[in-house]
Amino acid sequence: MATHPDTVTDWRVFATDHHLTHVALAGDAAVVTWSDHRTTPFQRFFLRDNCTCATCYLPLTREQLFEVTDAPADLAFASAQIAPEGDLVIGWSDGHVSRYAPGWLRSVAPDAASRAERHAARPRPSIWGGDHGGALPAFACAAIMADDRVLWQWLGAISTTGLTLVTEVPVSNHALLAPIARISHLRETNFGRVFDVRSKPQADSAAYTSVNLPPHTDLPTRELQPGVQFLHCLVNDAVGGESVFVDGFAIAEALRAEHPADFATLTTTPMAFWNRDDRTDYRWSAPAIALDAQGDVAEVRFANFLRGPIDAPAAAMAAIYAALRRFQAMTRNPRFFIERRLAPGDMWAFDNRRVLHARREFDPASGARHLQGAYVDRDEILSRWRVLARELGETV
Amino acid sequence: MATHPDTVTDWRVFATDHHLTHVALAGDAAVVTWSDHRTTPFQRFFLRDNCTCATCYLPLTREQLFEVTDAPADLAFASAQIAPEGDLVIGWSDGHVSRYAPGWLRSVAPDAASRAERHAARPRPSIWGGDHGGALPAFACAAIMADDRVLWQWLGAISTTGLTLVTEVPVSNHALLAPIARISHLRETNFGRVFDVRSKPQADSAAYTSVNLPPHTDLPTRELQPGVQFLHCLVNDAVGGESVFVDGFAIAEALRAEHPADFATLTTTPMAFWNRDDRTDYRWSAPAIALDAQGDVAEVRFANFLRGPIDAPAAAMAAIYAALRRFQAMTRNPRFFIERRLAPGDMWAFDNRRVLHARREFDPASGARHLQGAYVDRDEILSRWRVLARELGETV
Repeated sequence: MATHPDTVTDWRVFATDHHLTHVALAGDAAVVTWSDHRTTPFQRFFLRDNCTCATCYLPLTREQLFEVTDAPADLAFASAQIAPEGDLVIGWSDGHVSRYAPGWLRSVAPDAASRAERHAARPRPSIWGGDHGGALPAFACAAIMADDRVLWQWLGAISTTGLTLVTEVPVSNHALLAPIARISHLRETNFGRVFDVRSKPQADSAAYTSVNLPPHTDLPTRELQPGVQFLHCLVNDAVGGESVFVDGFAIAEALRAEHPADFATLTTTPMAFWNRDDRTDYRWSAPAIALDAQGDVAEVRFANFLRGPIDAPAAAMAAIYAALRRFQAMTRNPRFFIERRLAPGDMWAFDNRRVLHARREFDPASGARHLQGAYVDRDEILSRWRVLARELGETV
Repeated sequence: MATHPDTVTDWRVFATDHHLTHVALAGDAAVVTWSDHRTTPFQRFFLRDNCTCATCYLPLTREQLFEVTDAPADLAFASAQIAPEGDLVIGWSDGHVSRYAPGWLRSVAPDAASRAERHAARPRPSIWGGDHGGALPAFACAAIMADDRVLWQWLGAISTTGLTLVTEVPVSNHALLAPIARISHLRETNFGRVFDVRSKPQADSAAYTSVNLPPHTDLPTRELQPGVQFLHCLVNDAVGGESVFVDGFAIAEALRAEHPADFATLTTTPMAFWNRDDRTDYRWSAPAIALDAQGDVAEVRFANFLRGPIDAPAAAMAAIYAALRRFQAMTRNPRFFIERRLAPGDMWAFDNRRVLHARREFDPASGARHLQGAYVDRDEILSRWRVLARELGETV
């Protein structure tokens, strides 16, 4: 069977169990029929746009050269056929010829059944609650360093579960950077490429004091909150300071199911978040729960200590505060949180746009406490995960 | 007049020409009357949430300690009065006392008139078209390095106009980093902290070939496109390779006014963008035009050479392609673009989420062409701009 050029240059294989049995022209679409009797209409500009002949496409960079605005407005099908090797071959009214492999056509088919299949097959998070403790995905640092498959599984667990533990990370300054370097570059912030979490006298954030830090995501003050946070324990001798983790997606889904009005409020009301010191002044406003285009929960954004005044109509305030108070109360409910004491050498890696973390108050006079942290964005996690899947021969 | 604690610790001054003349309790709100006869209802939890007494607020970090979920559900006003010095003083049913300066109250007032005033006063971009050339904001690199006011004006121009030219940047490797260091840290990407734009044999993007690069934003393949791009010319001896800039916000506003159906399509249809090489696989889908919560245009996202197949219902394809073809055609229309030839020492700084840039095809055999680029996100631009305003005594 012929292959779409992408199968060569693009590392992707468009396998399909179905072949094309027929093509008919109907208005501005070529309607194909599949061996499972499904029919798919492909609009003329969609097909022309996706031509991958050597004139339209630059194999070196796997990038499109043709711009669809250069097609004539009256572009029409001159011919359409299923070639002997199974490809759809279109002849155009301006003389151009395009061909499309059935596996590729099936992977982008815009008919309702095909789109529903792709929607159902989308990766979904595995949500968890306070009973999750025993099942936390854990990975040994040495295995992440040595074995691409373990690295791939770790990144998969971060994406699916949102919270992972890496054990036996060397207890030395910046030792967290070695496993992170297996992934990508860092997301730098004004707190540095690596930030040190310990009590300091001129704190520019409550994180750098010893007070109780209620469940929060880091840097909700930024348009894009850092995607994944790595938090490595070097010293933990102080009394108190236990770590708490909450699956914000679990709270969001519980709200959606049990308190839909509050869910609607929290997905639509912008919350203001601020962080200011003598050198910076960061501000951003966005809903505490963000949905993607499919209506799936994509992000949780919350830090009580960084919240500013809510800018909303007076008549909406009562409902907004009811929802906000419920959300805050849920982050404290044992139904949703797990609590751990970090030990030197432990490194938590968690989705900072999903998992809220908290720190109990500690007594800085009772002993030292020193963590180091860094961020990597979701884009880099997913890119690395896809490339590893490609190299490991995994279908994703 | 007494001040809200924020005026001391927060570098912000809440000046108002209006004072409080009266407060009355009505249901769950304290309704204040202002000297200009405006009335504002402040809901009980809103006021309790924003108490900045020493128990509720940590002045060291300017961060809230109190969590509003800790207020009793039946929290009620016990008393409300205008203190002799002008503050609103609330006594609560649980014995707590809060006070609020009128300047602060006015700045967050949730009544319709106050919210409309704030909405009208929001910063708005200044859009431009092909006739813009003569008015391009330009700044000398030495002035940016030496003078905080020039730096502040430069950042303001980037935010307002989206496109600026910095002249007389030293023509040496990584010289662009000195003016950028006046702002903040960089946004690193897989192309490096600094990327070199020149033709290379194993190109991982069309940018690194000599082909015509149609108007595009950089890295639409990322959830957050880099905010501001700095592009510094070191060598430009090749024939061709002129630079083109298009104000994407001008196109968006023209579409909104002249072709509202296309505008609606482009603000709601996710476009897929891809970039893959042997080490990375980046993908993101989002509309070509993004609106913020107010309906203002917040972002343009487009690179034809990085586009993937559109995932949309078959019945929507004709309208989507009509809108896409119109958008592409507008980026080529002299009404919207300006064209410049970069000279060594020129550095363009532009909002990469607004201004599309293009490069004409060049002949690599005719001479060398070498640019260096880097990115800084909008968050950092705005934070630095606010801190400079604070230091320069500017009201923003």
